[in-house]
Amino acid sequence: MRRFSLLTSGIALCAATVAYANDDLITQMDDSKQWAIQTGDYKNHRYSELDEINAENVGDLQVAWTFSTGVLRGHEGSPLVIGDTMYVHTPFPNIVYALDLSNEGKIIWKYEPKQDPDVIPVMCCDTVNRGVAYADGKIFLHQADTKVVALDANTGDVLWEVQNGDPSIGETNTATVLPVKDKVIVGISGGEFGVRGHVTAYDINSGELVWRAYSLGPDDDMLVDPENTTHLGKPIGENSSLNSWEGDQWMIGGGTTWGWYAADMEENLFYYGTGNPSTWNPAQRPGDNRWTMTVMARDIDTGMAKWFYQMTPHDEWDYDGVNENILTEQEFDGEMRKLLTRFDRNGLAYTMDRVTGELLVAEKFDPVVNWTTGVDMDPNSETYGRPQVVAQYSTAQNGEDVNTTGICPAALGTKDQQPAAYSPKTQVFYVPTNHVCMDYEPFRVSYTAGQPYVGATLSMYPAPDSHGGMGNFIAWDNINGEILWSIPEKFSVWSGALATAGDVVFYGTLEGHLKAVHADTGEELYRFKTPSGIIGNVMTYEHDGRQYVGVLSGVGGWAGIGLAAGLTNPNDGLGAVGGYAALSDYTALGGQLTVFALPN
Amino acid sequence: MRRFSLLTSGIALCAATVAYANDDLITQMDDSKQWAIQTGDYKNHRYSELDEINAENVGDLQVAWTFSTGVLRGHEGSPLVIGDTMYVHTPFPNIVYALDLSNEGKIIWKYEPKQDPDVIPVMCCDTVNRGVAYADGKIFLHQADTKVVALDANTGDVLWEVQNGDPSIGETNTATVLPVKDKVIVGISGGEFGVRGHVTAYDINSGELVWRAYSLGPDDDMLVDPENTTHLGKPIGENSSLNSWEGDQWMIGGGTTWGWYAADMEENLFYYGTGNPSTWNPAQRPGDNRWTMTVMARDIDTGMAKWFYQMTPHDEWDYDGVNENILTEQEFDGEMRKLLTRFDRNGLAYTMDRVTGELLVAEKFDPVVNWTTGVDMDPNSETYGRPQVVAQYSTAQNGEDVNTTGICPAALGTKDQQPAAYSPKTQVFYVPTNHVCMDYEPFRVSYTAGQPYVGATLSMYPAPDSHGGMGNFIAWDNINGEILWSIPEKFSVWSGALATAGDVVFYGTLEGHLKAVHADTGEELYRFKTPSGIIGNVMTYEHDGRQYVGVLSGVGGWAGIGLAAGLTNPNDGLGAVGGYAALSDYTALGGQLTVFALPN
Ligand SMILES: O=C(O)c1cc(C(=O)O)c2c(n1)C(=O)C(=O)c1cc(C(=O)O)[nH]c1-2
Ligand SMILES: O=C(O)c1cc(C(=O)O)c2c(n1)C(=O)C(=O)c1cc(C(=O)O)[nH]c1-2
Repeated sequence: MRRFSLLTSGIALCAATVAYANDDLITQMDDSKQWAIQTGDYKNHRYSELDEINAENVGDLQVAWTFSTGVLRGHEGSPLVIGDTMYVHTPFPNIVYALDLSNEGKIIWKYEPKQDPDVIPVMCCDTVNRGVAYADGKIFLHQADTKVVALDANTGDVLWEVQNGDPSIGETNTATVLPVKDKVIVGISGGEFGVRGHVTAYDINSGELVWRAYSLGPDDDMLVDPENTTHLGKPIGENSSLNSWEGDQWMIGGGTTWGWYAADMEENLFYYGTGNPSTWNPAQRPGDNRWTMTVMARDIDTGMAKWFYQMTPHDEWDYDGVNENILTEQEFDGEMRKLLTRFDRNGLAYTMDRVTGELLVAEKFDPVVNWTTGVDMDPNSETYGRPQVVAQYSTAQNGEDVNTTGICPAALGTKDQQPAAYSPKTQVFYVPTNHVCMDYEPFRVSYTAGQPYVGATLSMYPAPDSHGGMGNFIAWDNINGEILWSIPEKFSVWSGALATAGDVVFYGTLEGHLKAVHADTGEELYRFKTPSGIIGNVMTYEHDGRQYVGVLSGVGGWAGIGLAAGLTNPNDGLGAVGGYAALSDYTALGGQLTVFALPN
Repeated sequence: MRRFSLLTSGIALCAATVAYANDDLITQMDDSKQWAIQTGDYKNHRYSELDEINAENVGDLQVAWTFSTGVLRGHEGSPLVIGDTMYVHTPFPNIVYALDLSNEGKIIWKYEPKQDPDVIPVMCCDTVNRGVAYADGKIFLHQADTKVVALDANTGDVLWEVQNGDPSIGETNTATVLPVKDKVIVGISGGEFGVRGHVTAYDINSGELVWRAYSLGPDDDMLVDPENTTHLGKPIGENSSLNSWEGDQWMIGGGTTWGWYAADMEENLFYYGTGNPSTWNPAQRPGDNRWTMTVMARDIDTGMAKWFYQMTPHDEWDYDGVNENILTEQEFDGEMRKLLTRFDRNGLAYTMDRVTGELLVAEKFDPVVNWTTGVDMDPNSETYGRPQVVAQYSTAQNGEDVNTTGICPAALGTKDQQPAAYSPKTQVFYVPTNHVCMDYEPFRVSYTAGQPYVGATLSMYPAPDSHGGMGNFIAWDNINGEILWSIPEKFSVWSGALATAGDVVFYGTLEGHLKAVHADTGEELYRFKTPSGIIGNVMTYEHDGRQYVGVLSGVGGWAGIGLAAGLTNPNDGLGAVGGYAALSDYTALGGQLTVFALPN
């Protein structure tokens, strides 16, 4: 597995080249004692150099302390640690706590925004929030109602706030923000409400809007250059989005931007993906629906697009393309490349050149994926880069009001928002996955602002003829495009993974276990039943010379929506309620941080 | 301290004499591996013979597993353990979970009653519930809305249910029930709504009402015998209650019965106390207001009263007399006596003969208590058994609309519902206490059914000229009436204590710590910060050969009402909000079970 020794750490690569308000953040990200950004670093590695807790001793792990957030429903994201302070956020109403690590977690300050609860029913997939961000002495919170707030990290005082979207038309937020250079880059949710996705940069000091780039629509709105913005190496040309929609449909066309963001400061690029086209009924929106379902590389300063790659043209299954892009430097075909690896909802794991947008690998990361036979990898082909669709599982080909059955994966994908980790030490990706299939029946729906614009009835169930469970936790080789090992799980693994230099990989389960497995073999080394199902992401930090591992419990998210929102009709929750009904035998709602350490 | 060796365990005394539906419960209570009743046993000892966890090794304690209840606000009471099953309850809406201890706490069944949320505003002191009871294969839940439900312990199916009170006139419930012989004995809350207290026995198998005894009113309603029911050895005489009230005031006179119950099956008696007279404005209800503020011994089968003792005649401070009565067999003045010891809200600890109702000891269990100079102990005195009131702190003498300041203790007493533990091994009582004083200004109030009938404005603060904190955890010698040691605490200790044969005493703090101290010295041996403030009671059990200690977190109760109900006006929450405001620097709402064990 260890093809060559570890290169420079992600951040060190660019630290010398910047002199911005977020130098402080870069220093913090470089210091493995901190957990300064939700994603671990700009490269989305979720890897820590800390190794006090390691494969030898992780079996002795203990709970060191705990903290109840005072909020129920799904707790995604993780705390941050900056110095002696831990920042803990909650789902709606998006409380932020600053806890004193030197004083038994005493609450230094608490920020509780006043938000109109009317935003709750326009959140598609639970009232989750994927966490606050830190830079330059500020904590950035992007609320459910799309207000972006900068707080003084020491006092919790509001430094600036700005309204990014309009919940009355279904614009909401669940994502964390990306503080990079002198900007805070933020996305938007609402693909199930016909929201037209956009990404916006605000000035990190004032909150002033610097630029906004839509995912679809006119070139000017999209911040694209028909000549210089490329798709698989070719210029996208004029009106590349408008040309792929009928009439005005792009105006309510989705492509929201609620996933994880990465940055390569050397290239001055940031990366993210766009979500599903609206509605879920493909018959209502002929065309490729560009640039939904697309990974995008954009200039940090201007927002101008450098390259796009559309994973799932004309989506027929709700395979949002928002999953995280993990940036690595690895040898590929004998050459060191700057890579981008992503585990897409559609069940394919892509390895790309992140500078050029060249597609290098596209392989299924769950063998049950059946809607496609794979991606056309022939650069000279007409359908280069397109997934080949299997007619039987094409909800577009089967048509409206036809129930297409047995599609794998289900709409929530082989992986949803739950982020993977990458260990530069093992050069392996550790990926929380879903092992769920579905029936999907599209129907005609009309658009009303602020009302669901879904147009499909779904039901979900464990992948048939498999181990019976709804998830796997896998190790992935992104160079050869293959699974190295796979741990079957009863439910989807909806928690984010953490890899460490101690050769341990951590993840949480929907039943509520924190699990530690060996990075090389997947062997389970430790498990602990936390208060509630885990959909948070595991993080680690060091304080007073001791390594800690922390994770939020609080079942919910799309997978846990039945429990979180108290739904029982199997088709409710966009089809997830039935599939995950058994979850209520294992856990109840919660909202707790559990922090682990080795015995003193 | 060890005056003589341990007598028979509480239950063994009577096990031979009964053959009732709850024989099963007695067997379970006698087995220290179980935690079969909220109070540990019928004698309210909260003591366990288990000693795997002991003073030597408790410092190594670890969290074994956790469970989120899915409900926020104050979690009083504790789980029960019967065999392989743990029963966990919640505050309103009073969910009950049966958890499989052999299967990582998997949920065997969940019972969630449908209750009208209108009951919430008529609960005086948070939406707490002090737990379910077990007997004869049934789990008994007494809901907030006063519905008493018997569930099949194996399936959660409802076997019978009965409505005990009427929330529309302010009758609610927070207490656990007492299953004894063929009855389930239940109390009522609502002293702040002019509810006239009562205790009711239902048939354990059918739920049929067997008898009901009011705390005040006509003799027939009260189930008293003017000749044979005694007060301090003398017959109470005819109309003993009516004579102590003006006109019809007894009809809205309080004396509710929301505390802990004890039973002595050899004597066929059960014991409990009655709460404050309504209103809190003493000027509005001249007289002794009998039999509020009274400890009562009644026949289990008939409800007929054997003896009463009124601790605080004509209450002027809201010193409800409902605290637990702890039954012991100890030597007193060279003679073995069947004793009853109680730590009253009014700041006095009473030791009594529980067969005759003779008063043996009455001493302050916090030296700051200042409203009384003590109890007249001269049997020949006119005022025998009465506390001598200090004029300066008499809100009755100072009159309506006068703010009497500096009264100690505050209305929530030197101890409120948080139950003490007794170790037969050390013959010491371990008592969670409040160290809080108050200003109290009575005002005229008129009665409207279902509306608060309080009539006093309070503010609370830490006992002046003391250690600055609001609580102490003390060890008490009930024979000599003296404090053996005292641990100062920042906040009131609102959690129930547990004593074990391992010479360890456990209690929780409002900040959220579970603490273990040495039974002999009070030395702190272990502390762990649970997710939320602890107002639950610590319990212990053994499973698969391993001893566990469990406690519910979830800040609230009267002390935590500011956090629990989101109140900020210092005088709100019947005066508790201001005093406990600093609690929000330490903890947030929760609802979690934390279970501890030694390392494997
Ligand atoms: O299209 C959208 O705007 C949008 C938003 C969100 C969200 O903001 O959480 C999710 C999804 N889609 C979605 O498709 C999805 O699977 C999903 C899962 C989750 C989650 O947090 O568990 N959110 C979302
Ligand atoms: O008079 C009553 O009926 C009544 C009821 C209750 C209750 O049911 O919780 C409390 C009280 N009074 C009370 O005085 C009091 O101090 C109190 C504390 C608590 C608690 O659970 O923290 N309940 C109650």
